[in-house]
Amino acid sequence: MSAPDQAQFLELLTLAEELADAARAVTLRHFRPVGGISAANKLESGFDPVTEADRGAEAAMREILTAKRPQDGIYGEEFGVARGSSGLTWVLDPIDGTRGYMSGTPTWGVLIGLCHEEADGPGAPLMGVIDQPYIGERFVGGFGRADWSGPQGKGRLAARATPTLGQATLFTTFPELGSADERTAFGRVAAQVQLTRYGMDCYAYALLAAGQIDLVVEAGLYPYDIAAPIAVIEAAGGIVTNWQGGPCHRGGQVLAAANPELHAQALAALAG
Amino acid sequence: MSAPDQAQFLELLTLAEELADAARAVTLRHFRPVGGISAANKLESGFDPVTEADRGAEAAMREILTAKRPQDGIYGEEFGVARGSSGLTWVLDPIDGTRGYMSGTPTWGVLIGLCHEEADGPGAPLMGVIDQPYIGERFVGGFGRADWSGPQGKGRLAARATPTLGQATLFTTFPELGSADERTAFGRVAAQVQLTRYGMDCYAYALLAAGQIDLVVEAGLYPYDIAAPIAVIEAAGGIVTNWQGGPCHRGGQVLAAANPELHAQALAALAG
Repeated sequence: MSAPDQAQFLELLTLAEELADAARAVTLRHFRPVGGISAANKLESGFDPVTEADRGAEAAMREILTAKRPQDGIYGEEFGVARGSSGLTWVLDPIDGTRGYMSGTPTWGVLIGLCHEEADGPGAPLMGVIDQPYIGERFVGGFGRADWSGPQGKGRLAARATPTLGQATLFTTFPELGSADERTAFGRVAAQVQLTRYGMDCYAYALLAAGQIDLVVEAGLYPYDIAAPIAVIEAAGGIVTNWQGGPCHRGGQVLAAANPELHAQALAALAG
Repeated sequence: MSAPDQAQFLELLTLAEELADAARAVTLRHFRPVGGISAANKLESGFDPVTEADRGAEAAMREILTAKRPQDGIYGEEFGVARGSSGLTWVLDPIDGTRGYMSGTPTWGVLIGLCHEEADGPGAPLMGVIDQPYIGERFVGGFGRADWSGPQGKGRLAARATPTLGQATLFTTFPELGSADERTAFGRVAAQVQLTRYGMDCYAYALLAAGQIDLVVEAGLYPYDIAAPIAVIEAAGGIVTNWQGGPCHRGGQVLAAANPELHAQALAALAG
């Protein structure tokens, strides 16, 4: 495909926000039911709100895309791959952080990425949205935008300049993710930073883009987990790679850093 | 003191919300500054937003209490103890979860508890507020109230009926808190539950009262960390004790459970 021009940028950004609005409505409908979401409730009612919300939100987004951008591909967590002809593909995770969602936390999110489409999957991300429906908060990056909006206002995203691991704040979903070797490598980074925090789901990537934290280290990711965060963080001036410094838009091990100096130090720590 | 009557209940609940409003304004003023809160920024500017927010919010609450309830005691994290004569004392944590606050997460909170006053510290909690200023969410329990309000509406708090550890969701601030023995005991509970999640600060107690999760296990707490959560959870029908089943309003090890059956099973697991 040819590179999108300015008019197309605006169209695609507007569409991405329309998708986020649609997913927000569906995910909120099933969020925090009375008595919560638990194995016990599921057995009694035969109804799984997480699955309903996940599938419903992706279906709502795909319906809009099929109507408005039938030429684009779709790569979704729930309903798989639909090839396009435009050279662009939408990478959708209707609920990133399903365990957070089922626990009622405000840290799961809707992830919408727009990537180059390659023969065997999504290519490099061009634009992304991280949306937190319960708070009503949105982080958008790409095509000239790098901004957030939420209950306390709106502003620009800019990753920060923290120069050393010793001054850095690290987020992760470890200890619950990854192999033993991966946890060991993560531990080498954690041992050097000022502060390590857990359990924020995709919200950690938004905080990095917003200049509030410095590093996110994860493993075992899928393309739909990371496409949107890459776009948002890169638009904010940060860097996202795998643990060897290469591209990570296909998932796997991910290192997101606020700036090149920190990124290099974290890469070295991961390598051991 | 004599037990407060209905008119006093209303006065005290209204006052607690006034305190929460005042703390909300101060904590939000310093939350998520451009470039965030980090050791690097602190060194450059000589200004610590967390300390400013913590002290400013407690000072704002104490000023209101001194004006409106000079007969009550105050037990605050930042400015210590002021004895009262009414037999009641306000137990204040202006920012519970300072590490979450400095990272920009939406899971720290303002904790306001009203307790019996004893000679050597706060007694059993009567009423409490857990407030999350960034989301604009509040959880109130005691004196006949057990309710929440937030960006998506309002409703009643009710802890849920999950019958077994195997179906339960557990929250904690471990692995970062506690001694080695305490982490081992925690691990025995974690090994039996369906889902363990980390890093939610006081927000985990609110989720338990709201019927979204089942257990919170922590250690090393202070009275101001737990007075308000006890009141909110008990008002919602849950149970909060230490790891031996006794009172925990003085802090230390805490086990919060949605119902008596789960509480008994978690106590047994902690005992090993």
